[in-house]
Amino acid sequence: TSSSPSFFGNRGMTLEQDLNDTNQYYRSTGRAVIHKKPTPVQIVHVDYPKRSAAKITEAYFKQPSTTDYNGIYRGRYIDFEAKETRNKTSFPFGNIHAHQMDHMSEVLRHEGIAFLIIRFTLLEETYLYDAARFIEWYFGQKERKSIPLPDIRENGHLIPLQYSPRIDYLDIIDRIYFS
Amino acid sequence: TSSSPSFFGNRGMTLEQDLNDTNQYYRSTGRAVIHKKPTPVQIVHVDYPKRSAAKITEAYFKQPSTTDYNGIYRGRYIDFEAKETRNKTSFPFGNIHAHQMDHMSEVLRHEGIAFLIIRFTLLEETYLYDAARFIEWYFGQKERKSIPLPDIRENGHLIPLQYSPRIDYLDIIDRIYFS
Ligand SMILES: [Mg+2]
Ligand SMILES: [Mg+2]
Repeated sequence: TSSSPSFFGNRGMTLEQDLNDTNQYYRSTGRAVIHKKPTPVQIVHVDYPKRSAAKITEAYFKQPSTTDYNGIYRGRYIDFEAKETRNKTSFPFGNIHAHQMDHMSEVLRHEGIAFLIIRFTLLEETYLYDAARFIEWYFGQKERKSIPLPDIRENGHLIPLQYSPRIDYLDIIDRIYFS
Repeated sequence: TSSSPSFFGNRGMTLEQDLNDTNQYYRSTGRAVIHKKPTPVQIVHVDYPKRSAAKITEAYFKQPSTTDYNGIYRGRYIDFEAKETRNKTSFPFGNIHAHQMDHMSEVLRHEGIAFLIIRFTLLEETYLYDAARFIEWYFGQKERKSIPLPDIRENGHLIPLQYSPRIDYLDIIDRIYFS
């Protein structure tokens, strides 16, 4: 309930839910226009029953060719990927695809703002981590397939979890990209 | 075949196919990073068969909350909706949703570049039309639910159909938003 000490804690909300709430808050207060892209789906078969909505009866998940979120803030193009991990010592590259990396590189080349929001679910810590640094780690090492937590703690930016907006990442954007 | 006089003509390509080709060309030449967003789908049921890919067996089309395309060009946020019509005298508002209009207004308020690409399929004419002007028409009239073709011809910007890129809309963006 709302008087419990863990009210501002995780409450079982996923990172995606927190970000959707936060982006909704940003839009309704006129601060930014940032949306999650729909999940890419390959549609194979659709039924068109009379008198009711078209029903997709066969479809498959597709690999995304870009990141999950983009939009505009203070006149700048903003682009990021959000990932949760249950790992407690590092962020594994496992579920970031090569074309998502290419996409972030391209955004940087075109002077957009690109970053990741990484949540360590079991540690209840959420970080904003610059894409340029992420790309260096990703392509700069042969053996290791992850970023160690100490690097993320030192060079990422901890986003405190609060009531509304849940994860105020634009405050960090102001500090690191606009000052 | 490639020597036919209609080679640069429509060839049965939809506007979406032309735009996907064009955006692919822009990305591969490093000119811009612009993608179509996936079709929004409400997923109701997924089967997880052993030894094969997850299969979506029940899903429905959702109304999009934003426009179809966005990205970055010359450091600016770019956002547009693409629509085809078989109408020969006007562009009917029918399939533009209210929240897509709201989205375009928000983008303009945040200093993004927003527009529509409208194709009159039967006339084989494709126009870039500024979102601010579109919004005026959309909200400024009670009876009429469309923009008359003469206005689009006069105030829109005809995009010639060519081989590659198919519809070079960034040339028009250069002229009207960057000069
Ligand atoms: Mg994600
Ligand atoms: Mg469309």
